[in-house]
Amino acid sequence: MTSSAPNTVALVLVGDELLTGHTIDTSGPWLGRRLTEEGLQVGAATIAPDDADAVVRAIEHGMEAARAVLVTGGLGPTPDDVTRAALARVPGHWVNAELANDVGIEPGARLESSRAIVYAVPGVPAEMRAMVSGQVLPEIVTAAGHMSPRSTRSLIVVGLPESRVAELLTPVREYLGDRGRLSYLPQTAEVEVLIGSTGNDASTLAAAATARARQLLGDAVAAENQRLEEAVVQVLGARGVSVATAESLTGGLVAAALVSVPGASDVVRGGVVAYATDLKADLLGVDTDLLARDGAVAPTTATAMAEGIRTRCRADFGVATTGVAGPDPQEGYPAGTMHVAVASRRGARVGSFEPSGQRHDRETVRRQAVVRALDLLRRAVVDAGPGPGES
Amino acid sequence: MTSSAPNTVALVLVGDELLTGHTIDTSGPWLGRRLTEEGLQVGAATIAPDDADAVVRAIEHGMEAARAVLVTGGLGPTPDDVTRAALARVPGHWVNAELANDVGIEPGARLESSRAIVYAVPGVPAEMRAMVSGQVLPEIVTAAGHMSPRSTRSLIVVGLPESRVAELLTPVREYLGDRGRLSYLPQTAEVEVLIGSTGNDASTLAAAATARARQLLGDAVAAENQRLEEAVVQVLGARGVSVATAESLTGGLVAAALVSVPGASDVVRGGVVAYATDLKADLLGVDTDLLARDGAVAPTTATAMAEGIRTRCRADFGVATTGVAGPDPQEGYPAGTMHVAVASRRGARVGSFEPSGQRHDRETVRRQAVVRALDLLRRAVVDAGPGPGES
Repeated sequence: MTSSAPNTVALVLVGDELLTGHTIDTSGPWLGRRLTEEGLQVGAATIAPDDADAVVRAIEHGMEAARAVLVTGGLGPTPDDVTRAALARVPGHWVNAELANDVGIEPGARLESSRAIVYAVPGVPAEMRAMVSGQVLPEIVTAAGHMSPRSTRSLIVVGLPESRVAELLTPVREYLGDRGRLSYLPQTAEVEVLIGSTGNDASTLAAAATARARQLLGDAVAAENQRLEEAVVQVLGARGVSVATAESLTGGLVAAALVSVPGASDVVRGGVVAYATDLKADLLGVDTDLLARDGAVAPTTATAMAEGIRTRCRADFGVATTGVAGPDPQEGYPAGTMHVAVASRRGARVGSFEPSGQRHDRETVRRQAVVRALDLLRRAVVDAGPGPGES
Repeated sequence: MTSSAPNTVALVLVGDELLTGHTIDTSGPWLGRRLTEEGLQVGAATIAPDDADAVVRAIEHGMEAARAVLVTGGLGPTPDDVTRAALARVPGHWVNAELANDVGIEPGARLESSRAIVYAVPGVPAEMRAMVSGQVLPEIVTAAGHMSPRSTRSLIVVGLPESRVAELLTPVREYLGDRGRLSYLPQTAEVEVLIGSTGNDASTLAAAATARARQLLGDAVAAENQRLEEAVVQVLGARGVSVATAESLTGGLVAAALVSVPGASDVVRGGVVAYATDLKADLLGVDTDLLARDGAVAPTTATAMAEGIRTRCRADFGVATTGVAGPDPQEGYPAGTMHVAVASRRGARVGSFEPSGQRHDRETVRRQAVVRALDLLRRAVVDAGPGPGES
């Protein structure tokens, strides 16, 4: 990534709370994704405290990296809102204008000089997003109009390590040559592949490269241009089938991921969090002899949980998780042991995994199990073929 | 916040993936929190792409804000790891040393000149955290040793808007005077109050101010120096009582929040996600006449769900959520309608809420309902008084 291209934008995010770790910044990732979608790139992002000197320095730093600088936050009326004071002190001859706020109260600001254009938008996410999408991005894209068109597609790949994905996609990299690039973003238990292309046929090129990548990766591709849970809800809806969840290890996260998707109510029946072992028998009908023999952390138990929830919720598919979140071992199994199972009228399948990557903390183990469970469910639904009436 | 104080640190986070919005940066918030805990402050944080020029500019920008600059990421062996190349090009006479990596492979780097000390640590979270806590922070704290001690405490306040919290805490602000400050960080449906103090008696002062704040805010204080779900698991454990969850609106998020806390298995029995209305009857035993009369989105239904899950899971407390996540209305109720209920042997209580703040999207509504449910549970457990044997 070079930082001096005409399609480069610098971000300045203003707010003490973003620096103390008490608020997770969601504006930066949203802006990064929107800019990438528009064929723009972020040259640098600076988080500045509520201090006018620091904001001035951050804006000047942004102007070294890009001709367009986008400042979020610090526009309110209280004394700790310092962005307007900072804008007045950036050296240069600036022509000022306001940006209308269609969602909230405080207007944004637009300053233009021969050196740069600085846009200042509110920090409130809804107001920021509306002003950026409606006013700022169209102008930046037009100003960079002579640049080469860009296109980016995303694939979510589950079950293959990043190095293997890159190896399999060598022909795509060669096909793209200097007209595009592949980027690999390892996530919790999946790899996101970004397929970017430039040139007048950027969109056609990215589509062709994506089709080739899907052939090479086969059923490891879980989603294209969407999140894994969106892909799962979509395939369930397309087949007209329903799902229910039985969770031990993941404690509700599989259900929560599914119902985060609008329209989930058409395909998600419900589920059970069977955290205590005796509830696996009571709420899911898992055989007590099986629990006594194999324990709570076993592939057989995961399968019985999936079958139990499918029956109790009258769903076409049941999906289940069990394992050891840690930090302590359980039933003799180390932290990170995970079993996921999917049951349907046609039978059950189960997957057992160790945590991948270098982080084996409680949250990482659970998030990896969510990805494994959703992916196993997706594969089972796809393999069951078209048409409803599974149950 | 001034940015030239001797206890100020500048952060540089290196990585294309942090700028495209495809990875949520968790290192920045972790560093911000750890630095704040040590009485240090972040003067600026810059996210730089995998481009040596950009990293050099970011380090120089950091050196304008602070004498200590902490760089994370870009230390690996592949061509897109540019931090070492950038370090070699920062102008000045530098004395170089390595920082040992006790967790992974790539060592860190420490460069000192008369202008600044630059620390470069790996981007892998576990390695970064170990190197920062073990080697970097102790050195920075020692170097800033002549600075005034600082202390920060945190309170989570639920049920009061930020403006009302600030008004109630006026006596604390006056008590602290210029020896400390109060900061308000509005979260999803709660406000975090940071009580900071300086001086040789900083710790005593912060403790006294926090005690005063708790008196003024009463039972609106849900947690001190911990997350809300940690406080809830702790009070359940202290009383020796258990809980089970019945979720419609929140789809598993209340259960997931509780079991994210280590030790949750001692107090969380399990729960049900009754997303489809008929499952509220089947899995929770909610009366079908009640469902027909009041519908799925009603305080009476929430109460019946809490009572049902308490009985079915043999728990001391049952907690339930129902409502309309949106974007569309349901049963005539607008998106954002939420009802939460808690049941125990002594009876039930229910709370009905509209979404607060300016964001009414699906995720925000559900996260606000999680906070409301956990807080209602906390209040019910506290009010039930000491000792086990609720059920």
